[in-house]
Amino acid sequence: MTKKISVTKIGGAIIDSPERLESFLDSFIAMPGLKILVHGGGREGSRISRRLGVEPIMIDGRRVTSADTLDVVTMVYAGLVNKRTVEIMQSHGCHGALGISGADADLLRAAKREPLNGVDYGYVGDLTPAGVNVEALDSFLAAGLLPVVCPITHNGNGQLLNTNADTVASSIARALALDGNDVTLNMCFEQRGVLAQSGELIKRITPELFARLVADGTVSGGMLPKLENALAVAADGAKVMIKAAEDLSDPEAGTEVTL
Amino acid sequence: MTKKISVTKIGGAIIDSPERLESFLDSFIAMPGLKILVHGGGREGSRISRRLGVEPIMIDGRRVTSADTLDVVTMVYAGLVNKRTVEIMQSHGCHGALGISGADADLLRAAKREPLNGVDYGYVGDLTPAGVNVEALDSFLAAGLLPVVCPITHNGNGQLLNTNADTVASSIARALALDGNDVTLNMCFEQRGVLAQSGELIKRITPELFARLVADGTVSGGMLPKLENALAVAADGAKVMIKAAEDLSDPEAGTEVTL
Repeated sequence: MTKKISVTKIGGAIIDSPERLESFLDSFIAMPGLKILVHGGGREGSRISRRLGVEPIMIDGRRVTSADTLDVVTMVYAGLVNKRTVEIMQSHGCHGALGISGADADLLRAAKREPLNGVDYGYVGDLTPAGVNVEALDSFLAAGLLPVVCPITHNGNGQLLNTNADTVASSIARALALDGNDVTLNMCFEQRGVLAQSGELIKRITPELFARLVADGTVSGGMLPKLENALAVAADGAKVMIKAAEDLSDPEAGTEVTL
Repeated sequence: MTKKISVTKIGGAIIDSPERLESFLDSFIAMPGLKILVHGGGREGSRISRRLGVEPIMIDGRRVTSADTLDVVTMVYAGLVNKRTVEIMQSHGCHGALGISGADADLLRAAKREPLNGVDYGYVGDLTPAGVNVEALDSFLAAGLLPVVCPITHNGNGQLLNTNADTVASSIARALALDGNDVTLNMCFEQRGVLAQSGELIKRITPELFARLVADGTVSGGMLPKLENALAVAADGAKVMIKAAEDLSDPEAGTEVTL
């Protein structure tokens, strides 16, 4: 049976601000229908890493995940950030909030990334929709639970892995859409959507416009993989919105990424 | 309908040894029937606490839980230890392993302990069977999931709390027994059971024998609250075994605590 499901991803800036997180979770809880929340790690990961004497190493904006770093992100993402988020939801009366990682119930099975161009990213997991356990998500949603997913995945063979939270959210949205559900993915971030060089909001991005925006430099840096992810989700049949966390409850706000 | 459910608790020494944990989980997975695992924190909590500059404070063997300490135990118990345990189970083919805290699905609602005899234990949660969400446990077990519970609880009002793992396991066992299930609680620890002063295993402890063992000093220290917990569980109708983790698969091994 087709179900209407929303998948919402929040990143570091919301996670790092208790006030913004609390206010965001208020709108999130009020949103009707079946829903899944995916959160990133925020700066807490780097902060606690430094306090433990594990210096964060970034290459091209990607965290290199040593065994020590994996322990830190497992603690911070699956422990501190995940349980704090769940507990705020509980205190707002959302008793179905269920904080889980990709290892729990075999939810997200990823492949350890092979060294790329001589760079070994360590315990980083690449996830595709095939690695998402849709049956487990279905059973949580059917039981009235609201999965709150942190970006720790596993390879099913004893190894936890660190995965990009955008990739987790988009893989979940794609898997649910491919399974025949009516899915909306809300990718929440710092701006009210994708902005033109004039500063104006771009209401709709198609693959053709995306190619032009990349060519003229409007889209670059971290927005590039985010939009590539978004286009893959749209191609699999989900509706994708890139928007500010503060605009979650306005279905018209933000940039729609569509075919 | 009466269900046969086992609740098994493991403590620090098993958690701290990767080899013993892996071998224990092997027997645990092989155990037939519906089951729930409750784990403690182990020495990792104190170790990481010190590395973060948060000095552990113990009074009468109980950890005083400051706000900083609560963050550390949330990270270590709900993050590192819980997910490592789940991932070992996953790699052994136990795909239903689901790592959760007491905040998830409103599973374990505790009351923050009031200062006692002038000692404020901080963010410590006292849990009773009434705080256990039996419906949530039932729905996980019915879905073929195997809850792996860490001893972080919550007050339902925005506060995570640190709770003794023995208390978590015994409250879960009591709540399930009071709900009419056929429950066995396995309290695994360092010895093959409760030992007499001669070193011989005591096969069976009743409330009467307990009183005598306390009076003659055979039972003291950490064994005292453990046996009080165990007697409360027996009084609520569950079978209670205190035994070595290595003896899990032998139903006759260890000390039975009974009315």
